[in-house]
Amino acid sequence: NGSDKLLGGLLASGFNEESCLSRYQSVLYRKPSPYKPSPYLVSKLRNYEMLHKRCGPGTESYKKALKQLDQEHIDGNGECKYVVWVSFSGLGNRILSLASVFLYALLTNRVLLVDRGKDMDDLFCEPFPGMSWLLPLDFPMTDQFDGLNQKSSRCYGDIVKNEAMDTEKTFSYLYLHLVHDYGDHDKMFFCEGDQNLIGKVPWLIVKTDNYFVPSLWLIPGFEDELNKLFPQKATVFHHLGRYLFHPTNQVWGLVTRYYEAYLSHADEKIGIQVRVFDVGAGPFQHVMDQISSCTQKEKLLPEVDTLVERSRQVKTPKHKAVLVTSLSSGYSENLKSMYWEYPTSTGEIIGVHQPSQEGYQQTEKKMHNGKALAEIYLLSLTDNLVTSAWSTFGYVAQGLGGLKPWILYKPENRTAPDPACGRAMSMEPCFHAPPFYDCKAKTGIDTGKLVPHVRHCEDMSWGLKLV
Amino acid sequence: NGSDKLLGGLLASGFNEESCLSRYQSVLYRKPSPYKPSPYLVSKLRNYEMLHKRCGPGTESYKKALKQLDQEHIDGNGECKYVVWVSFSGLGNRILSLASVFLYALLTNRVLLVDRGKDMDDLFCEPFPGMSWLLPLDFPMTDQFDGLNQKSSRCYGDIVKNEAMDTEKTFSYLYLHLVHDYGDHDKMFFCEGDQNLIGKVPWLIVKTDNYFVPSLWLIPGFEDELNKLFPQKATVFHHLGRYLFHPTNQVWGLVTRYYEAYLSHADEKIGIQVRVFDVGAGPFQHVMDQISSCTQKEKLLPEVDTLVERSRQVKTPKHKAVLVTSLSSGYSENLKSMYWEYPTSTGEIIGVHQPSQEGYQQTEKKMHNGKALAEIYLLSLTDNLVTSAWSTFGYVAQGLGGLKPWILYKPENRTAPDPACGRAMSMEPCFHAPPFYDCKAKTGIDTGKLVPHVRHCEDMSWGLKLV
Ligand SMILES: Nc1nc2c(ncn2[C@@H]2O[C@H](COP(=O)(O)OP(=O)(O)O)[C@@H](O)[C@H]2O)c(=O)[nH]1
Ligand SMILES: Nc1nc2c(ncn2[C@@H]2O[C@H](COP(=O)(O)OP(=O)(O)O)[C@@H](O)[C@H]2O)c(=O)[nH]1
Repeated sequence: NGSDKLLGGLLASGFNEESCLSRYQSVLYRKPSPYKPSPYLVSKLRNYEMLHKRCGPGTESYKKALKQLDQEHIDGNGECKYVVWVSFSGLGNRILSLASVFLYALLTNRVLLVDRGKDMDDLFCEPFPGMSWLLPLDFPMTDQFDGLNQKSSRCYGDIVKNEAMDTEKTFSYLYLHLVHDYGDHDKMFFCEGDQNLIGKVPWLIVKTDNYFVPSLWLIPGFEDELNKLFPQKATVFHHLGRYLFHPTNQVWGLVTRYYEAYLSHADEKIGIQVRVFDVGAGPFQHVMDQISSCTQKEKLLPEVDTLVERSRQVKTPKHKAVLVTSLSSGYSENLKSMYWEYPTSTGEIIGVHQPSQEGYQQTEKKMHNGKALAEIYLLSLTDNLVTSAWSTFGYVAQGLGGLKPWILYKPENRTAPDPACGRAMSMEPCFHAPPFYDCKAKTGIDTGKLVPHVRHCEDMSWGLKLV
Repeated sequence: NGSDKLLGGLLASGFNEESCLSRYQSVLYRKPSPYKPSPYLVSKLRNYEMLHKRCGPGTESYKKALKQLDQEHIDGNGECKYVVWVSFSGLGNRILSLASVFLYALLTNRVLLVDRGKDMDDLFCEPFPGMSWLLPLDFPMTDQFDGLNQKSSRCYGDIVKNEAMDTEKTFSYLYLHLVHDYGDHDKMFFCEGDQNLIGKVPWLIVKTDNYFVPSLWLIPGFEDELNKLFPQKATVFHHLGRYLFHPTNQVWGLVTRYYEAYLSHADEKIGIQVRVFDVGAGPFQHVMDQISSCTQKEKLLPEVDTLVERSRQVKTPKHKAVLVTSLSSGYSENLKSMYWEYPTSTGEIIGVHQPSQEGYQQTEKKMHNGKALAEIYLLSLTDNLVTSAWSTFGYVAQGLGGLKPWILYKPENRTAPDPACGRAMSMEPCFHAPPFYDCKAKTGIDTGKLVPHVRHCEDMSWGLKLV
């Protein structure tokens, strides 16, 4: 089925296949997506690719633009404008924020450049044909990235606060602080008037750990374009994620080997992503209870028969493979023991698998993030997905997979909530730290109530998501 | 394929199938054994079953025989003689010693009765039709079983030592101490003359943790009969084990559920039984090295390619499922990581599975032994088996499976031996504590050099095994 290896035109053809096997092989592991990219999105991407090739690292335009960085203000207009995504936070957060910044680049005709941080280049292939998306290692500001914060000079929020924006002159660069701890002035980024000022600046340096796409839909100047790009609104990350994030061959080896060895033969694959934000060492009983309760109530997994001593005999029993991802091994071990020790009430055969048990978050270890990415990807290959509230790790899996997950609601006071989980409205990620500001009226407003397609999230009452 | 569910006549027909599903279902999970029981063995078993029915618990004969226990010596000859197997030691040891005592019962026309200990009745179905093999709970000596040792009154070795055997009179019972720590006088059990004396005693109480079958072949009076029973000499435990040991429905559920969920779809199943007798908490690096070295050198598992970053593409790659059993989870985790992180040089797909990780030997926990038995049984269902030197757990698996294992030689000084493993000569268990005595010449002798079919073991130089 070579016809859809470009995912309905989403992917550009002509890449070297060997150098990034996942790009065209993913179609062999996924069910075809029911969501097709719009022709407008496809042509926008092809245009972006040309822009990227024209302005990317090493081009004359790039060299010219680099020179502007030496001055405080620019004179005249350069050919290319850039947005630099700074590597920051956990893997899930990075993937979501990078997709957000890419969409922002599409909307503002900027060229996206990616700070590789510790391992972005080990994890992901180049997404654009013929020109790297990686910020060159000799970019003059790279060593300042770690220290960037609200107090940094040229931090846009700080400039707004000090009313230091000179509308006659244009800064050579601005730093946009869109990290979850940002302030009201930083959030002015989401106002149309501010976008007009920011739009002139050739270099934007962005540090964010958020999927801020939902709030872009609330900026009037972007609305039309977004509607054309995504007539199915809740497919933004689904398409952009599949367009941008192709695991490198090393990570793809982790994905495919695990898939073939443990999942491929099952009639149905269930993903369960367990992310516990409680302090203290798990596994926690209330989380185990929550997992069983959710999967059984929602009929994702069968109940077990603790009284009958023999397996129910079924002619050709259905085989379900459960893929559990978690930093702790306890949850999968518990589930595995349960389905080993007792027969299922339906006669179904349940195998439980967990790829890695890293014990704790080790964002600096290379193979650790490779395994984390492989697990996200494996979750995205399942038929039904259960995720944990608040976790961007799960958001990425659901988006890539085109899956509306069942969300395990966040336990409070070490007690499993009732109901244990609920079905998500859409497969879109949740924006955890949206602004609540009416730019015109200059007053607070509930941004989750303005339009029907931007709502509060299922797992975080103040978050925003596309539905 | 109902035709061979009786395993070539080894099993009696007419049992209630529901009460012990494993008895007739095992044939669905095993390849047919290339070893057929001799017609003589089959008829001997049918005769034994009649004897057992006639003399078993609750019968008139049994009641009569019980009465004899009150006296020191018996007068006249009872209709039935008994051998009571006392529950003792780990599960593997128990299975092997019970099979040995059963063979002894066959050779001496005794009725075998089984002390259920903590859990024998939870683990095994009744093997004989229409009459229990379990020693009744009200057997008068049961509460003395735990304390039986070389110093016990009526311990045969002790009687020999004190020359207290009165050839004119016959004791009502004797205690046979055949535990690994037994002495030269206890070992007189293996002399023909002593067998003649012992043969008259109506009740024998045996405590043993040994597979003493090889030395029975060296007793001239048993030789002819054994040759007729087992023309293929190295099939004794294979046949007797399959005849006697049918897991209960609860344990069978553990076997079949695990098999279906994790092993059944593979093209080839490899069992690796890891038993480490070193003190200290594993996993040990030298044992991990030994496992990789053995499985790769013997071409049971492929090597991995640590340099190439992408999986070798093979049209229809072979899928091997590796079943690891061990008290520690480290060895299987190590193997699993290796085959996850790197592609195999052959393109084969390797899945690694470990049912339980109990951490340490917990012989008193019910489900623990149920899981241990299930694991032994699962190992016996593999196509190729790697076992650990000295472990009776592995011996049982190889015997039930009809498999000549690769034995991981015992490491010395925490160093992996070279070669790491070697192929066993036969599938028979090793007798760990055989006598070295020439009963006629009344002198020491190397009993491993007397006949070609009783030799020293591969994994224990002083042990004896049938080949
Ligand atoms: N391998 C693996 N790593 C995990 C898992 N859950 C969390 N992590 C690690 O913890 C980090 C969590 O950060 P992030 O991906 O941003 O997800 P979030 O914190 O759940 O929103 C990941 O990047 C991983 O390094 C898991 O299930 N498997
Ligand atoms: N479940 C399980 N238990 C084991 C394993 N290895 C040892 N054990 C436990 O330790 C005991 C070891 O005693 P035994 O079966 O006589 O084997 P041996 O000591 O290796 O000869 C077993 O009965 C089990 O209770 C294993 O791989 N799996």
